Amino acid sequence: MPEDPLDHLDTATARPGGRTARVRQAVFDATVAELSEVGYAALRVEAVAERAGVNKSTVYRRWRNKATLVSAAIVERRGELVPPPDTGTLRGDLIALLQEIRLGLKAPWVTALLREAAPRSAKSAELYELLDRFWPERFQVAGAIFERAVERGELPAGTDPDFLLQMISGPLYFRLLMLGRPLDDAFLERTADLVLDGARGGDGGGGAGA
Amino acid sequence: MPEDPLDHLDTATARPGGRTARVRQAVFDATVAELSEVGYAALRVEAVAERAGVNKSTVYRRWRNKATLVSAAIVERRGELVPPPDTGTLRGDLIALLQEIRLGLKAPWVTALLREAAPRSAKSAELYELLDRFWPERFQVAGAIFERAVERGELPAGTDPDFLLQMISGPLYFRLLMLGRPLDDAFLERTADLVLDGARGGDGGGGAGA
Repeated sequence: MPEDPLDHLDTATARPGGRTARVRQAVFDATVAELSEVGYAALRVEAVAERAGVNKSTVYRRWRNKATLVSAAIVERRGELVPPPDTGTLRGDLIALLQEIRLGLKAPWVTALLREAAPRSAKSAELYELLDRFWPERFQVAGAIFERAVERGELPAGTDPDFLLQMISGPLYFRLLMLGRPLDDAFLERTADLVLDGARGGDGGGGAGA
Repeated sequence: MPEDPLDHLDTATARPGGRTARVRQAVFDATVAELSEVGYAALRVEAVAERAGVNKSTVYRRWRNKATLVSAAIVERRGELVPPPDTGTLRGDLIALLQEIRLGLKAPWVTALLREAAPRSAKSAELYELLDRFWPERFQVAGAIFERAVERGELPAGTDPDFLLQMISGPLYFRLLMLGRPLDDAFLERTADLVLDGARGGDGGGGAGA
């Protein structure tokens, strides 16, 4: 599970299974449930607190605003969905990652966020505040599969995990959201193979920074 | 410009520059303007007719419903934006296609549609009725660049343009909508190069159908 960037704030009281952990879990459950129901723009921290059975001030003491709270909740929730795959080969890791992305795209709270995603605008500023917190953490966790591949000599040094993650994620989002076609196993395997061949050939995706 | 599938309905009267052509243009202009303002779900054929200064019955005689009308309008508008690039090399064509996709993603009516795109659901059925008309035409036009590359011997026979179009389009949509990052030239070129290397290596994207 990726580490919550705010964990250091209450290290002293955050014993596994203790009250802090229970509150945290209840608040995250409530956040994801609210997100699934109303989306991000309409989500209210007050409603989350009520649903979790805690005081609003308890939530704000730990997570200073809506973006911080939702970001922490979905990073953890993605962490549950995604033990960063380590199958021993890059191809195996890529397919495992693609399966995990597919699984994520089925989660109601992901669907709710996708409904709100649109090109950046004043209207979408709040959503991007959230996405700007979420994606770097997500990419850091998922990018490990490319770093391992470089260590094993499967990819050239200088490979850019950030770029390859966009190449591997993009087709799934496009196929599901734009084409409305199923993310079947055959498509996932073909996507993995093309990115694999592409990353090995040419400059290995390691050219000028994205 | 891609051929309108309904053109055969009034071949007899559709002279370039004639009244039919003027009405068609006015209706398409009005459709795209309405789409940009209210999106697809809220678009009303009556409002389009009023904006174009024609009778509602004129619109319905030519385009039998909202999906047919909007699909015809955006296929033509994309046709204006997109002379299918023929630069003489696959790499040149891919970069031209990516530039064209980037241009399209800036159009207000595309933004409006993107705001409505979400995983298929009862709520999104109407939008997908539209997308199911749009994408096959779009893919047919854009897929020509891969067919030419096969003819030139740049890609193996059995290359699947439909699959490669998803691989090349996906990262741009993902980067813009999910990451909110700019679609700079460097990113377009890296995307083209990776798909190019991937399509040449392995099975050339020509494996089992998508």
